[in-house]
Amino acid sequence: MADEVILLNFWPSMFGMRTMIALEEKGVKYEYREENVINNKSPLLLEMNPIHKKIPVLIHNGKPVCESIIQIQYIDEVWSDKNPFLPTDPYQRAQALFWADFIEKKLFVCGRKTWATKGEELEAATKEYIEILKTLQCELGDKPYFGGDKFGFVDIVLIGYYSWFPAYQKFGNFSIEPECSKLMAWGKRCMQRASVAKALPDSEKVVGYVLQLKKFYGIE
Amino acid sequence: MADEVILLNFWPSMFGMRTMIALEEKGVKYEYREENVINNKSPLLLEMNPIHKKIPVLIHNGKPVCESIIQIQYIDEVWSDKNPFLPTDPYQRAQALFWADFIEKKLFVCGRKTWATKGEELEAATKEYIEILKTLQCELGDKPYFGGDKFGFVDIVLIGYYSWFPAYQKFGNFSIEPECSKLMAWGKRCMQRASVAKALPDSEKVVGYVLQLKKFYGIE
Repeated sequence: MADEVILLNFWPSMFGMRTMIALEEKGVKYEYREENVINNKSPLLLEMNPIHKKIPVLIHNGKPVCESIIQIQYIDEVWSDKNPFLPTDPYQRAQALFWADFIEKKLFVCGRKTWATKGEELEAATKEYIEILKTLQCELGDKPYFGGDKFGFVDIVLIGYYSWFPAYQKFGNFSIEPECSKLMAWGKRCMQRASVAKALPDSEKVVGYVLQLKKFYGIE
Repeated sequence: MADEVILLNFWPSMFGMRTMIALEEKGVKYEYREENVINNKSPLLLEMNPIHKKIPVLIHNGKPVCESIIQIQYIDEVWSDKNPFLPTDPYQRAQALFWADFIEKKLFVCGRKTWATKGEELEAATKEYIEILKTLQCELGDKPYFGGDKFGFVDIVLIGYYSWFPAYQKFGNFSIEPECSKLMAWGKRCMQRASVAKALPDSEKVVGYVLQLKKFYGIE
């Protein structure tokens, strides 16, 4: 039986981008279904992720896998013959999971503040955002990828945010490049990969989406 | 070379309890070092977890592994010959990771509100806490453990909270048993295991600790 793989997603989601990249890297054929998460979630989404009711949902032969980081691990284990994402050494695996968790805990919440707050709160948020990126840049070091010579798990977890950087910078009125030029070079390097280029939306489109969000939430 | 394993912990931490249980289940010999996380973190803790500066830290042959859920996975992979925690099937692994993530996202934050808030906020928190536990109880179903017939990954992730239930109920003035009797029976079942009995502190001691916390934060 051929695998039936469906991805329920919403295009600006940096979480959904991860799962798309993972599927593309493994060469898995899948059906992409765009969800309207703001106004009208599909019955399938609510059925497949009754706990969180959130995208992305990966549906493999009718069975749902939820949460993007878990989806990447699942894809890595099911399609294990090609492009492994996680190292095999337990210590290196733990380190990769640690940085994925760090990104998960820090980047979304702080990023949101760059367009949803103002004044002192905004100033603190943009400073914190740069500090988070500097920490990640320090972990990257002189390696081409977080995975070393190969594009891997942490790269997949982080790269979606790269498409949001222009929006964060525009609305937060700050600049990432001066202190994080190595990380920006890493982003450009990742964008050379077909999987990443396909999964990441145009940054200008993200800027437009954030404008919509600001209007939706009544943020001046 | 014999393995040198050190656990930096603070006894009331439900996160540290997980790592202790995992080590005990695998029969790993380790040195337990109690940290004073409120007033005086040790130089070793700050050196081994410079990013979060938090316990528990597992130090294996001089190298740190941080974040309790990652520590459980690491212990499972390194000492793989005994009592596997995670299933081998990728879909079942993804499900176990999903429930661990659910516990991680929901239980600590809501639990804290049961002793740190009052009025409407407290009322909402205690209702939410019961709903979270009911969701977990539904996942448990009629199985003896979340891992099925065997005590496994999700059981290890959740059981530490059981030692906090009396404190949550006392300060939040609510009762878990009426709607969650199956989950309470699961807790009692887990307490029969030597690993769990050793890792979980006496609930009355936790009540005393929460009283200290309330004074520390000036919460009446």
